[in-house]
Amino acid sequence: MSSFTPEIEAAIDAVRQDVAALHAELVRYGLVVWTGGNVSGRVPGADLFVIKPSGVGYDELTPENQILCNLDGTVVDGTPGSERSPSSDTAAHAYVYRHMPDVGGVVHTHSTYAVAWAARGEPIPCVLTAMADEFGGEIPVGPFAVIGDDSIGRGIVETLTDHRSRGVLMKNHGPFTIGRDAKDAVKAAVMLEDVARTVHISRQLGAPAAIGAAHIDSLFDRYQNVYGQPVPGAPA
Amino acid sequence: MSSFTPEIEAAIDAVRQDVAALHAELVRYGLVVWTGGNVSGRVPGADLFVIKPSGVGYDELTPENQILCNLDGTVVDGTPGSERSPSSDTAAHAYVYRHMPDVGGVVHTHSTYAVAWAARGEPIPCVLTAMADEFGGEIPVGPFAVIGDDSIGRGIVETLTDHRSRGVLMKNHGPFTIGRDAKDAVKAAVMLEDVARTVHISRQLGAPAAIGAAHIDSLFDRYQNVYGQPVPGAPA
Amino acid sequence: MSSFTPEIEAAIDAVRQDVAALHAELVRYGLVVWTGGNVSGRVPGADLFVIKPSGVGYDELTPENQILCNLDGTVVDGTPGSERSPSSDTAAHAYVYRHMPDVGGVVHTHSTYAVAWAARGEPIPCVLTAMADEFGGEIPVGPFAVIGDDSIGRGIVETLTDHRSRGVLMKNHGPFTIGRDAKDAVKAAVMLEDVARTVHISRQLGAPAAIGAAHIDSLFDRYQNVYGQPVPGAPA
Amino acid sequence: MSSFTPEIEAAIDAVRQDVAALHAELVRYGLVVWTGGNVSGRVPGADLFVIKPSGVGYDELTPENQILCNLDGTVVDGTPGSERSPSSDTAAHAYVYRHMPDVGGVVHTHSTYAVAWAARGEPIPCVLTAMADEFGGEIPVGPFAVIGDDSIGRGIVETLTDHRSRGVLMKNHGPFTIGRDAKDAVKAAVMLEDVARTVHISRQLGAPAAIGAAHIDSLFDRYQNVYGQPVPGAPA
Repeated sequence: MSSFTPEIEAAIDAVRQDVAALHAELVRYGLVVWTGGNVSGRVPGADLFVIKPSGVGYDELTPENQILCNLDGTVVDGTPGSERSPSSDTAAHAYVYRHMPDVGGVVHTHSTYAVAWAARGEPIPCVLTAMADEFGGEIPVGPFAVIGDDSIGRGIVETLTDHRSRGVLMKNHGPFTIGRDAKDAVKAAVMLEDVARTVHISRQLGAPAAIGAAHIDSLFDRYQNVYGQPVPGAPA
Repeated sequence: MSSFTPEIEAAIDAVRQDVAALHAELVRYGLVVWTGGNVSGRVPGADLFVIKPSGVGYDELTPENQILCNLDGTVVDGTPGSERSPSSDTAAHAYVYRHMPDVGGVVHTHSTYAVAWAARGEPIPCVLTAMADEFGGEIPVGPFAVIGDDSIGRGIVETLTDHRSRGVLMKNHGPFTIGRDAKDAVKAAVMLEDVARTVHISRQLGAPAAIGAAHIDSLFDRYQNVYGQPVPGAPA
Repeated sequence: MSSFTPEIEAAIDAVRQDVAALHAELVRYGLVVWTGGNVSGRVPGADLFVIKPSGVGYDELTPENQILCNLDGTVVDGTPGSERSPSSDTAAHAYVYRHMPDVGGVVHTHSTYAVAWAARGEPIPCVLTAMADEFGGEIPVGPFAVIGDDSIGRGIVETLTDHRSRGVLMKNHGPFTIGRDAKDAVKAAVMLEDVARTVHISRQLGAPAAIGAAHIDSLFDRYQNVYGQPVPGAPA
Repeated sequence: MSSFTPEIEAAIDAVRQDVAALHAELVRYGLVVWTGGNVSGRVPGADLFVIKPSGVGYDELTPENQILCNLDGTVVDGTPGSERSPSSDTAAHAYVYRHMPDVGGVVHTHSTYAVAWAARGEPIPCVLTAMADEFGGEIPVGPFAVIGDDSIGRGIVETLTDHRSRGVLMKNHGPFTIGRDAKDAVKAAVMLEDVARTVHISRQLGAPAAIGAAHIDSLFDRYQNVYGQPVPGAPA
């Protein structure tokens, strides 16, 4: 049985609610079937993260049955949900949190078009302004890796470190996305499938036109700095 | 703080309701993901238009959080929603309203099949009677343009002025549609994606048969003048 | 103002309810967008049919706003809904009812995959057992015809008379289906799009295997005579 | 009129509830249209199974109108639902239950992508880790067989006996899946369509990379033994 400060308990509860609720976005955008796919979120101020239980249906997810893990991927005993197994991808999420301290959320799906590119081991070229905005260039491919050790996590981290893209296509497997928090990683998963589908469909009837590197840079820079509502407390 | 006549206030309120509600049609027809896409509507009798706030989810849109803008694209201070930023595409909408006085509504999406044609920079040929009805010919491509100045708005206006089509595919970006009012522009966005998808799929297995220009003319003319219910007060 | 016997009034009311409700199946299966598409049903025992009003949204359809027409396609004055215009495809439906006395329902949509075949003017080959069951062979193509006279109706009737298929792909336009009643025609519209999509997708990666004519005959014969629940009063 | 022990009655009721409810998953994942498709479940401890009635809509299915059958495919007289005809695929389900004693559930659909492969008579190659997990290799093709005798059931059994895959693509027809129980067979039907779609789409733009046989073996072995929550009472 673990005991945390009230501040950490409150932070855990907030992440449990976010993670449980954000799984509904994977369903809404058709990124998952059956019990596949998973979202996790880091607990701010603690070496902890919250992740989906393994093999549980999307209709049954609640804040209480999400699973609290240490950054080595072990379940924190005695906490709500700890009688269940965490997602079978927990080791990969944990590896990312250990090695990418700015990452606050990780998402994994087998979304159709992203997996289609991953099965060919082919990066998605940046031919859409929305892709330049969101990913700053192509979506890269990570190595083939099987579950059971750190090779998936290592592949994600090696591919995304110092890369603009918040998404990687693990070869023959599927996409992992990262973000500032769980919501940002879910947004990346949604946008990644959207661009994977659109570029696929465009290429079915010919070659999409390239966007010049300078244009990609300016679109990415502007979107990261200007889009959306002002963040309270941020410089105007 | 602005003050308007009661007539203008009533017109603003009506457009706020229309614009907020019409965003649901973009969701219903799968034209948008996350917070992407936007609808605006001109306020009849005033140099004003109403547009979606930037980066706000489709479930959270209300008449009150739509944003009232002047035709130069600046937010009207002190009006509901004015504490937020308007859509990042506001400058393009404003440019259209300034230069196309008959346009009462503008819609922008990244709908999949329309963007697929836009990424190749290829107009959609008119091979469907429904496309002749609605667009009177092909859907044209507008120039590549980056956000941040008037180049998107100028590209839309130059492409659609004196063109039958109410929709343009901005290269590597996506469709903009215009209409008599916001609803008409939303209908054009829905129909544009429908024809973009259908012609794409048809061409996957061979060349669609062309429709002769005279047939296109007669279909377009009839549809614009006969289809739908009689407009109250219009000539019989 | 028309007056009918109570039996005919009851039959009209029943068809109004069926036709209004069956439009929801077009939405459910994604066969229509905006106000496109239409269902009609013949009134048993009378030279009348009921059809969707023109340009009215699918959420607004009720038994009372469906429109009662004579078999020449004119609206029966003074009946509910008669202040509105019937579907712009009414003349085609009327032509079918006049020339195919066993037809009790007609459906028209612009469903994506059926229109994709229609745009190429290519019949859908019978390569699925479900297609043999339901259509008894290929889905034929009808002639290019523009709205405004009897040429669409004539094209449907000439193509489907003495053909097993209850559906025709009107060239560059889209599918029309017929049935014993409105529900049967709607089922044919749903199944037609399903086979149009499946055969399209199969052919994207190679040639589907043909089914021999004798097998098609036996599947069609069995399905027409055995499938489903026993009809009350029918021979056992 | 049959009479069963209370234990068997309870088991029948449980399977009726499962089978009726599981049909909703076929709708949710878009595997069926109109009244097509069917789920059945074996009654544990008895030579009985429960199956969908023929030609009845998915909105109308209840535990009480599912049909109880003997393993020869005949309806058990005097039981709820027995006044109706069982699914037209009942003989095939019965054949599977008679010849594969470990099978507790059978599902048949005409899901689009699975049928697309079946129409070409082409097995789905194992190029996704999720496919290795779930099916342990390729999805095989079964022989062309027409309804009306045991040839469909025989084709399923001959193809799946001693095969890792829980799904078979019957040529020109569609997929049948099997499982420990009805839910497991439904999961297989959902996953089969998912991999059929993803591999199809991947191959549209080039050849997916193969996964080595040793990797497939280790993924399959791990997934069958580790994934999901611990089964109560199972060895730790």
